[in-house]
Amino acid sequence: MTTQGVGIVAIQYFHSTTPLPLASGECLPEFTVAYETYGILNAAGDNAILLLHALSGDAHAAGLHHPDDRKPGWWDAMVGPGRSFDTDRFFVICSNVIGGCAGSTGPTSRNPQRQQRWASDFPVITIADMVNAQVQLIDYLGIAQLHAVAGGSMGGFQAIEWMAHHAERVATAVLFATSASSQAQAIAWNVIGRQAIMRDTKWLNGCYDPNEPPSDGLAVARMIGHITYLSEQSLQHRFDQRYKQGSEPRHTLAEEFTIESYLGHQAMRFNERFDANSYLYITKAMDYWDVAAGYSSLAQALACWQKPTLVLSFDSDWLYPTAESQIIVTALHHNGAEVTFHELSSPAGHDAFLIESDLLNPIVNRFLVKNR
Amino acid sequence: MTTQGVGIVAIQYFHSTTPLPLASGECLPEFTVAYETYGILNAAGDNAILLLHALSGDAHAAGLHHPDDRKPGWWDAMVGPGRSFDTDRFFVICSNVIGGCAGSTGPTSRNPQRQQRWASDFPVITIADMVNAQVQLIDYLGIAQLHAVAGGSMGGFQAIEWMAHHAERVATAVLFATSASSQAQAIAWNVIGRQAIMRDTKWLNGCYDPNEPPSDGLAVARMIGHITYLSEQSLQHRFDQRYKQGSEPRHTLAEEFTIESYLGHQAMRFNERFDANSYLYITKAMDYWDVAAGYSSLAQALACWQKPTLVLSFDSDWLYPTAESQIIVTALHHNGAEVTFHELSSPAGHDAFLIESDLLNPIVNRFLVKNR
Repeated sequence: MTTQGVGIVAIQYFHSTTPLPLASGECLPEFTVAYETYGILNAAGDNAILLLHALSGDAHAAGLHHPDDRKPGWWDAMVGPGRSFDTDRFFVICSNVIGGCAGSTGPTSRNPQRQQRWASDFPVITIADMVNAQVQLIDYLGIAQLHAVAGGSMGGFQAIEWMAHHAERVATAVLFATSASSQAQAIAWNVIGRQAIMRDTKWLNGCYDPNEPPSDGLAVARMIGHITYLSEQSLQHRFDQRYKQGSEPRHTLAEEFTIESYLGHQAMRFNERFDANSYLYITKAMDYWDVAAGYSSLAQALACWQKPTLVLSFDSDWLYPTAESQIIVTALHHNGAEVTFHELSSPAGHDAFLIESDLLNPIVNRFLVKNR
Repeated sequence: MTTQGVGIVAIQYFHSTTPLPLASGECLPEFTVAYETYGILNAAGDNAILLLHALSGDAHAAGLHHPDDRKPGWWDAMVGPGRSFDTDRFFVICSNVIGGCAGSTGPTSRNPQRQQRWASDFPVITIADMVNAQVQLIDYLGIAQLHAVAGGSMGGFQAIEWMAHHAERVATAVLFATSASSQAQAIAWNVIGRQAIMRDTKWLNGCYDPNEPPSDGLAVARMIGHITYLSEQSLQHRFDQRYKQGSEPRHTLAEEFTIESYLGHQAMRFNERFDANSYLYITKAMDYWDVAAGYSSLAQALACWQKPTLVLSFDSDWLYPTAESQIIVTALHHNGAEVTFHELSSPAGHDAFLIESDLLNPIVNRFLVKNR
C-alpha cells in the first residue's frame, strides 16, 4: 500500500472509429482504449514509457482515483519520483487491453452493429491484437517512439510483441517474469479456469445477465490462477495446515482452513471487478501466445530488435520460471542485442513482479535512466 | 496395459456390524470394506501385504474382473509373479477406503439409521479412520501381522498411519511419493476442487440425485488434480501448444488445444466411475493428514516403528516432492529404523508411482523378499 507517488489520477479514454483488423481475420468496427498517464510528456515526445498489464490488471497502474480509495493502482510502488518508472523523468502510460473489462472494448462493451453487449460474439483476440490497439493509442498521443515498453507476465507478452513487430516505435524494453510462448502447464491452468466458467450454469454461452454472472465459475478460475501466482514456500509459510479457528479439526465439509477462507475472499473480490467473458478471452489470447509462430526461431522473430533490454525473473516463480526468461535472453544474445538479465531471489513466486518493488526499483530505474 | 499377472479376480466384501468409532467422535454404525486378494495366504499367515490406494483408487489393484475388460487394475504392473508384490510369495490384499465409492461404505452408501443414502450426512473421516477399518479387515482375514503395508500418495498416508499406530501389526513398509503431512499447496488444490463441486448448482448440499450428479464440478476438480499428477516437462512434451486440428489457431472459445480435449476426456471418464461427495470426503481426509499432530515431532509420532522401511520419491513429482520423503527418512533415521531411500528419476511427475513399474519392480521386490 504505497503511494505519495503520483497522487490523484484519472482514467482517460481513446476512442477509435477506424476498424481494428484482428489476427483472426475479423475486425473490431470501433474500439476504445482506457488509459492513465503519470508524469509529463516532454517537448521532444521521447520520454514516454508504456506499461503493459497482466491477465487481471487494468489501466490503473498508480496513484488513487479518489483520496479515500483504500488501495492505489496495481504497480503504485513502481511508479513515481525515484521509482522504477520515474515520473520526474518519464511520461508513464498504462492502458487496459482490448478484451478487458476496465474501460477498453471487450465482451462487456456494446456491439455497435447489434446494439447489445458483445458477450461471446466478441471476436477472439490475440496478444498482437492488444498491441495493435496500443499502437493506435500511442499514435493518438503523438509519440513517435516510446522510451520503453515494460510488463510482467502477460504484460511481458505484449512487450515482446512490441519488440518483435514494432521495434522502430520502442527504444528499450523491460520484461518481468514472462515468456516468449505459452507452455503446456500454463495453458492447462487457463483451460481449467475456462472450463470452470463455461460449465457454470449461469454462463449461458456467454449471454448472461450482467447482474447474474457465472460468479462461481469465475471464482474457481481465480482460485486456480491465484495458487499459480504464489510459490509453494510462501503458501506453506502463510497458511500451512492452519485452521481459521483453533488448532483442532472440526470435521466438517464447511470452510475450515485459513487457505480456504483466503481463496474464498480473493475470489469474491475478483468477482466484484472482473467479467467472466473477459477472463475467457484474455486467457485464450495468452494460450495462443508464441511470438515465434511463423518464424524459424525465436531469434528470427526478434531479428529487428537490437535495443537495450532488461530481462528479470524470480527464482520462486513456477508459472513463468527463469528457464523461460533464459530462452528470451539466449535469442537476444544471438541477435547481438544488449541484454541485462537478472534472476532475482524472492519467496513471492510469480507475483514477485508486483510485490518486490524494493528489489526492482533500483535495477529498473537505473536501466531506464542509463539508456536515455 | 500389463497383466498375465494375477489373471481374473473378483471383488469381495467384508461387512462389520460393529460400529466404527471415528476421529471426529462420531461413529459409523456399520460398515463394509470392499477388497481384492491376489496370491495365497500361507499356513503361518505371515506373508500378507496390504496395498493402500490413492485418492481416486479402489480395491481393484490388479488383474481383470472379466476377460474382456479393457484395462486391468490400477497397479497391475506391480502385482504378480516376479513383480513388486510377488504373488508367488505373497498374499496381496487391496481394499477400498471408507468414504470411497467403489464398494466400501461412503457417502453413496445407505445410512442404516435413515434408510437413504448417506450423502453429506456421512461423517467426515480421517486417514486414521480409513486405517481403523482396514485393521478390522485384517483381523477378519486372520492375519496377526502383515508382512508389509505399501502405498503411494494418499496410500502412503495410510501406510504411515499403520506404522505410527499399528506398528505391531506390520513387519515392513513401502512408501511411494508421499508425505507425513499435507502441505499448503496440496491442500489448496483440494480446496479448489471441492469448491468446484460445492459451487456446482447440481450439488444441492450433497443431496443430489445419483442420476443428476454435479458432474461439471467433479470434472473441474479432476482436471486440477490431473495437472498436479503430471510434471511440467511431461505436459510440455505431450501437449506443448498443439491444436487438435492443424497448426493454426481457429480463434474460437471452443475446445481447440490437445491438452483441452485430453483434460475433457479424463474428466468424463472420471465422472463415469467416481462420486462427487466421495471426492469431498476423501480430499478432506487428505487435507487433515498430519501424522505428527498431537506429538512433539514426527520422530516421536513414529517412535514405535523400528522396522525395515523403503521410501521412494520421484524427481519430477511436485505434488509430493522428494523433500517431503526426506522428512520421513530423517525422522526414521532419528529413531534408528532401518530405512532404504531412493529418489528415482522419471519424467512422469507424481503419477510415476503408478507408471514406472520397470524402475520399481526390482527395487520393491528385492526389499520385500530380503526382509522376509
